[in-house]
Amino acid sequence: MSAEPPALLAADWGTTNFRLFLFSADGEVIARHTANIGLKNLGVLSFEQALTSVMKEDFARPDLPILLSGMVGSRQGWQEAPYVACPAGLDDVVAGLVDAPADKLRVKIVPGLSGDADHPGLINVMRGEETQIFGVAAKTGEGVFVLPGTHCKWASAEAGRITGFSSYMTGEMFQVLKRHSILGDLMEDDVDDDDAFKLGVDRALNDKSFLSLVFSVRTEGLFGHIKPESLSSYLSGLLIGSEIRAESLRHGVRPVTLIGDGSLIGLYERALKHTGFTDVTRVHGDEAAAAGLWAIAQAGRLI
Amino acid sequence: MSAEPPALLAADWGTTNFRLFLFSADGEVIARHTANIGLKNLGVLSFEQALTSVMKEDFARPDLPILLSGMVGSRQGWQEAPYVACPAGLDDVVAGLVDAPADKLRVKIVPGLSGDADHPGLINVMRGEETQIFGVAAKTGEGVFVLPGTHCKWASAEAGRITGFSSYMTGEMFQVLKRHSILGDLMEDDVDDDDAFKLGVDRALNDKSFLSLVFSVRTEGLFGHIKPESLSSYLSGLLIGSEIRAESLRHGVRPVTLIGDGSLIGLYERALKHTGFTDVTRVHGDEAAAAGLWAIAQAGRLI
Repeated sequence: MSAEPPALLAADWGTTNFRLFLFSADGEVIARHTANIGLKNLGVLSFEQALTSVMKEDFARPDLPILLSGMVGSRQGWQEAPYVACPAGLDDVVAGLVDAPADKLRVKIVPGLSGDADHPGLINVMRGEETQIFGVAAKTGEGVFVLPGTHCKWASAEAGRITGFSSYMTGEMFQVLKRHSILGDLMEDDVDDDDAFKLGVDRALNDKSFLSLVFSVRTEGLFGHIKPESLSSYLSGLLIGSEIRAESLRHGVRPVTLIGDGSLIGLYERALKHTGFTDVTRVHGDEAAAAGLWAIAQAGRLI
Repeated sequence: MSAEPPALLAADWGTTNFRLFLFSADGEVIARHTANIGLKNLGVLSFEQALTSVMKEDFARPDLPILLSGMVGSRQGWQEAPYVACPAGLDDVVAGLVDAPADKLRVKIVPGLSGDADHPGLINVMRGEETQIFGVAAKTGEGVFVLPGTHCKWASAEAGRITGFSSYMTGEMFQVLKRHSILGDLMEDDVDDDDAFKLGVDRALNDKSFLSLVFSVRTEGLFGHIKPESLSSYLSGLLIGSEIRAESLRHGVRPVTLIGDGSLIGLYERALKHTGFTDVTRVHGDEAAAAGLWAIAQAGRLI
């Protein structure tokens, strides 16, 4: 425990994950807790009931202010916190904080961000990632941030503001193609095959047609060029490579900060370094979320 | 019935479909029949049993030579007919005909074609489509052929030979994204919305990143820019547009022959004409298959 008394409860509350942090008055994380109360697992519990259920032991502090980020602020969440348009700084996010309708707790929810996509009229959105990005950008002030996941985000920050971002369906595409398309049929006993992965990355980098190239997972397996246990790595390389290709074409090769955890971050790091992104910094997703929640709480004078 | 006596039984026998034709000695289709004995529906029947089961009435002619094309010649089919490499003409296909191990019938199977893809070492394959293409190219001698479907093919023919082709996972991608990804979540009561379809085609034509653009099905629905009933048309436009973009980049805008049937052919025709492919000819898939089977049977002196 820190010498300082607890001053803030905050959580990254998404569709699947819930990560709770208890902060001291000097911004140290005193305790942390994860729970299986993502939006899709709430069951019959109300949001306040679910949150109260995890406020035990160190976290039994209903007197503290509570700050939440993530899908909890979506239309399907506790209380919608409308998207704030990019470019957006901490002050814009603070202005967009909304109160959750709680009976016994003081809860504020962080808004997501929206930004123009490359096509006129098209919009990108994020919820939760903005908090992680501010967790790093609040210190660095600028940078390019890559947040792998179901819908990977590439965001840019300048002078402490998130200026814009793109979304890629990379993670979900991998899952649906592997589980539900012919491309998964030949896969067996998946291993992490770095050669097959990099072959996929290389081919995607030179590609002009995703729909054609991705079919090679089938033909390469059919002709025995890639073993059944390596086809999953090859597909992964094609997808991540396709994403990196698009970003390189749009913005060139730049120093990037990878935010996240697990094996997916390792894959992105390998693919980025393989494709010329030699300056890659890694920040754990939990640390980024905690730092962002604290930065927003401070800027919003919650503590 | 034709004045000429029956001379050939031939079928396009795929994973799902089975289309049987009875030809007269002058190449007219005397009778035609479809049956639910695609490879995946064979159950406990052997190939010969399944084929015999549909040889009734006009087709009760076990004395005639039989020619089969399609997945029946794959490794999972009746007898594997190894792929013939492009460029390939009717003579090459005839040289690749294999005998099926039948007890009472005289059955030959048409080989599929293989061709180099745009990436060195990558291979494309087709089975069944080559017969449809020869059905048209045996007369025209040349052309660009588009065969929409689960895995759409774009093939080129010169001097009666298929010189090369590309495969696109367009049809299957549509199905898996609609059924198994977040993109289908907002779709409701699908209608054929030409505006949404062409919007998708236009956006795909200018796109550099499939994985990013396709996510707009989500955001356009979320922000109410495209109605729930039109999102399916929009996704369809993005996919077909992405395919047309790749072909345009590779080979430019050319006269094309669309081979197939059903609503999918209509969508391709609309997308092609919308994107500058003004010279589009349509040939029904059954007619192309019948003409191709006849051309191969003649070249192979089966009749």
